[in-house]
Amino acid sequence: MVYGYAGKILYVNLSTGQIYSKDLDLDYVYPVIGGVGLGIRLLLDEVDPKVDPLSPDNKLIFSVGPLVGAVPCTSRMAVISKSPLTGAVGAAFSGGYFPAELKFAGYDALVISGRADKPSYIWIKDDDVIIGDASDLWGLTTTDTQVILKEKLNQPDAKVACIGPAGERLVRYACIVNERRAAGRKGLGAVMGSKNLKAIVVKGSRRVKVADDEKFRQAIKRMHELMRESPVLYPSFSRMGTPMTVEVTAELGILPAKNWSATGLFAPVETLGGEAQTHYTITRMGCYMCPVRCGQIKVVKSGPFAGFMTEGPEFETTYSLGTIVGVNYLPAVIAADRLCDEYGLDTISTGVNIAFAMELVEKGILSVDEVDGLDLRFGNYDAVIKMIRKIAFREGFGNILAEGVKRSSEIIGRGSERYALHIKGLELPGYDVRGAKAHGLSYATAYSGADHNRGYAIQEIFNVPVPYKVDRLAIEGKGILCKWNQDVRTAVCDCMPLCVFVFDMGLAAYALEIMARIYSALTGLEINPDEIQKAGERVNNIARIFNFKAGFTRADDTLPARLMEEEIPGGPSKGQLITKEDLDKMLDEYYEARGWDKEKGIPTKEKMLELGLPLEWLSDG
Amino acid sequence: MVYGYAGKILYVNLSTGQIYSKDLDLDYVYPVIGGVGLGIRLLLDEVDPKVDPLSPDNKLIFSVGPLVGAVPCTSRMAVISKSPLTGAVGAAFSGGYFPAELKFAGYDALVISGRADKPSYIWIKDDDVIIGDASDLWGLTTTDTQVILKEKLNQPDAKVACIGPAGERLVRYACIVNERRAAGRKGLGAVMGSKNLKAIVVKGSRRVKVADDEKFRQAIKRMHELMRESPVLYPSFSRMGTPMTVEVTAELGILPAKNWSATGLFAPVETLGGEAQTHYTITRMGCYMCPVRCGQIKVVKSGPFAGFMTEGPEFETTYSLGTIVGVNYLPAVIAADRLCDEYGLDTISTGVNIAFAMELVEKGILSVDEVDGLDLRFGNYDAVIKMIRKIAFREGFGNILAEGVKRSSEIIGRGSERYALHIKGLELPGYDVRGAKAHGLSYATAYSGADHNRGYAIQEIFNVPVPYKVDRLAIEGKGILCKWNQDVRTAVCDCMPLCVFVFDMGLAAYALEIMARIYSALTGLEINPDEIQKAGERVNNIARIFNFKAGFTRADDTLPARLMEEEIPGGPSKGQLITKEDLDKMLDEYYEARGWDKEKGIPTKEKMLELGLPLEWLSDG
Repeated sequence: MVYGYAGKILYVNLSTGQIYSKDLDLDYVYPVIGGVGLGIRLLLDEVDPKVDPLSPDNKLIFSVGPLVGAVPCTSRMAVISKSPLTGAVGAAFSGGYFPAELKFAGYDALVISGRADKPSYIWIKDDDVIIGDASDLWGLTTTDTQVILKEKLNQPDAKVACIGPAGERLVRYACIVNERRAAGRKGLGAVMGSKNLKAIVVKGSRRVKVADDEKFRQAIKRMHELMRESPVLYPSFSRMGTPMTVEVTAELGILPAKNWSATGLFAPVETLGGEAQTHYTITRMGCYMCPVRCGQIKVVKSGPFAGFMTEGPEFETTYSLGTIVGVNYLPAVIAADRLCDEYGLDTISTGVNIAFAMELVEKGILSVDEVDGLDLRFGNYDAVIKMIRKIAFREGFGNILAEGVKRSSEIIGRGSERYALHIKGLELPGYDVRGAKAHGLSYATAYSGADHNRGYAIQEIFNVPVPYKVDRLAIEGKGILCKWNQDVRTAVCDCMPLCVFVFDMGLAAYALEIMARIYSALTGLEINPDEIQKAGERVNNIARIFNFKAGFTRADDTLPARLMEEEIPGGPSKGQLITKEDLDKMLDEYYEARGWDKEKGIPTKEKMLELGLPLEWLSDG
Repeated sequence: MVYGYAGKILYVNLSTGQIYSKDLDLDYVYPVIGGVGLGIRLLLDEVDPKVDPLSPDNKLIFSVGPLVGAVPCTSRMAVISKSPLTGAVGAAFSGGYFPAELKFAGYDALVISGRADKPSYIWIKDDDVIIGDASDLWGLTTTDTQVILKEKLNQPDAKVACIGPAGERLVRYACIVNERRAAGRKGLGAVMGSKNLKAIVVKGSRRVKVADDEKFRQAIKRMHELMRESPVLYPSFSRMGTPMTVEVTAELGILPAKNWSATGLFAPVETLGGEAQTHYTITRMGCYMCPVRCGQIKVVKSGPFAGFMTEGPEFETTYSLGTIVGVNYLPAVIAADRLCDEYGLDTISTGVNIAFAMELVEKGILSVDEVDGLDLRFGNYDAVIKMIRKIAFREGFGNILAEGVKRSSEIIGRGSERYALHIKGLELPGYDVRGAKAHGLSYATAYSGADHNRGYAIQEIFNVPVPYKVDRLAIEGKGILCKWNQDVRTAVCDCMPLCVFVFDMGLAAYALEIMARIYSALTGLEINPDEIQKAGERVNNIARIFNFKAGFTRADDTLPARLMEEEIPGGPSKGQLITKEDLDKMLDEYYEARGWDKEKGIPTKEKMLELGLPLEWLSDG
């Protein structure tokens, strides 16, 4: 009898039509817990790190964790593949109801390989799995896809994950949307599109089995207590959601603006801040089994964007489709957010790409003709809206931006690389890390590129003293802190999983302890806080090995030149930057803490042995 | 035991919160069959014909018929109220799944009165009916309303009828949307908005009981046979849907263009015709229990409207958002159609209003400033899209057009009335009746104003010889024909009900006979073709009495001056018009056939006695 875990991995080969499931090997999953850990371990085992990400040989893995479907605030999934944007491990995360439904259907993970010969969908109803013809869904936006597909299958309460027109066209930062949530980053929607896979429909009837009911109940009770005691989680976060971070980053002077050229100079809190956004909120929604319900449904009721509704914009989208494109008009951000969701575009990468183009036009590097005559000035939200559409459909200049800023700047040349803000090809999220050094180090070293959630330095941004208080501007000690943030966050938020916001604002210092209690009671497999953290460390090491085999080295653990050479121009963090020397110092400390070879940036043999990982993984590096 | 009928009428008073149901009185419903007949009878009985349509004293009645939920191609409902656009009986019709679901919940009709003190929804789950708070849904478009409301109630397979922003703002031609269908005309969405009613949610668990199973089965079998024998229904209509009428009307030269100023001169069949539209169709959808599935899901895959999907555009929308606004670019029509559906606007009235404004601008009657600087030239689809939004949200000049062309032209003055194409305040549908005289007479006399479906002269437009062949350009005999079309169509399509397309293309000459067999076997109440037709006649007489009491006279049974004074300017029907004399001749014949007083235009005492209607209804006229 398997507890907690569903106990099976579903394999679907779209080239051959072969569908089968394998029993989950607990010895295989336990060291990495599940979720993204299981996904990345499968990726390393089953996918050649040198594979073309958009070829049939790449795999697309959906992985839920042991807590999903049984524990509040855990209906999350990791989607893992080799990213077409970075060429590294691409892991994107989504919440909502689809993750729990996949678990209820009886699967810990779904591994999709090959490429269908025509547009297809996968329809999973417990053990009944079929590949269906989606020719008649091709071209639909993500809401329409979900509505029409559920009607066609007469499955109103099934859950659907799908791509929009952007994924169909292999836009390199296309996302995968379920309900109104997105596995947003790293272009996994393009991987899905490359497999001719429009959608996955799931309906599950099983429930998660608990090993020790009484212990489990007590642990969940404690979790709720901690959440209720938080001065932030319900009072502020439920009410405002992530946009409350606009105020925080503006106050610290690290809210990036105008393609990162105007941080501290343009921080329109009064129109885009968390408080301001509440005026557009009509109702709140949550993921499956979540009492926090941070999803703010916002509607524009008048003006040129009247009628647009979105669940969001989150803080990151407020940054990417607001401040970095110089827009301070929330209705335009709401409309742009909705369009990205409907077309299936990652809002962060989309905004960074448009901001990049805007700066190139303002600097005269690109002519107006080259951008299809659009008036791409910072602040022109009509141009933003038009460019979103062009990117999604790869029309005109949008066909260049659809490649992401790294490739776009290579195509454009003329020194445009300086304005392409990415790490390992992934566009930067919304924290100007020149004023938050450990956060910057996490951008530089995360296995998936500039990813704010893989080692979020909450200590620097929200002044949280867990595991200890830090000076956000200091360089020293940030290597160790970054490792802690990465390992704990990976283990708890991505593998168990647990919603990052409940981790940060609800459980905080108690997260490891509570998660250990819950995991042990749920699965019947004993685990302790140290072992949890170790699992996260394993995942970061396995991902590192995949990336190393894919060709990544220490040289890729870097920041955009702009952040290392130009100071923040104004505001509370004026004058800050992370010099190359700062970065090298932090990297040395980080590699040291990680037990990684400082030249190659990969685990030493000792570290492999310590983590119980096979040495042969290092062999063909 | 009641068969066929659900047996109950549900009453909801939004002012008091009172909710109760009454048993359906078979003696009350039988003479008018059900559907619109029941609804109009209730309207006359329960609503003062002089009531302000947007006051709490008006009622909004949803009425399904005895066949709904049991017979193929009958999942239709009539929504009845005093229309805020015309001040006459307003009846609008919709298909989809909501009508059957209302029947399954156990109701033949739902009568809504009063006005809620805050935005509300009605949630009907069989006998459990509540009024819920919809404050958090106010502002949502119609798709979003349906998605969010079903999520909030955790009722994924419930059906929702709702209004969009246009209904909330009392746009006088706001519609009511269920799924992707609309009870489109006569502004009943504004009545719903005036009651602060955002949505009605229904989930039913009952099935319709059949009185004589074997006879019923045989009758349904015969119905299917006739449908299969049709050379048009499946071969053409399933494939193209209503847009196949574009070709037909263009060939006859009666496809109106550019606010009816260019009929015969602008008929872009090659881009807007039924065949052309199929290139945009990705899949087909049908109403509950319909094998025909005429709903064409069309998607724009590239260009400025890429990503827009609509179920449609129907023929009428191809006219209203295409030819009469001078647009021949189908993607723009698809986008405009979707926006009208999302905002909850009747596409016909919306297009006629915009065409009206375009002609006024082109003629110099309105300045560009007066229309908010929009370039309202015929053919400018960007201006059409922008004006749709302005109307829905009553912004700028849209606030005037939101009143409908009749009131708008009164506000504007300056001779603009000539370009306001309406009858009794209802904007004209897409047949230039100058070249189809009985159809014109049906526009002039229909109880709800210019309504193409209340007495559709299929004999003139599709050359159908039922009940006999006619010359579409002749004046004589059209009064009698119009009465036949109105009575039979009302009885069968609106009261039983039956989908008008199955009536026309499937059953045709056999419709009355088949409907009599089905109704009798289903309900156990014997009926014959004559009695069916008589029921339709009763309904038209009852509606007439309501309108008479509301202040309508023979003078209102007219056509826009333009159609009586200006000839069709080109094409196969060039030179045609219906003069005042032609109209009077047809009206005299029509009143004669109807047994109506030729001065007042109301039933004589003899007619009332013949129909078994109470004479006192005529008393306070």
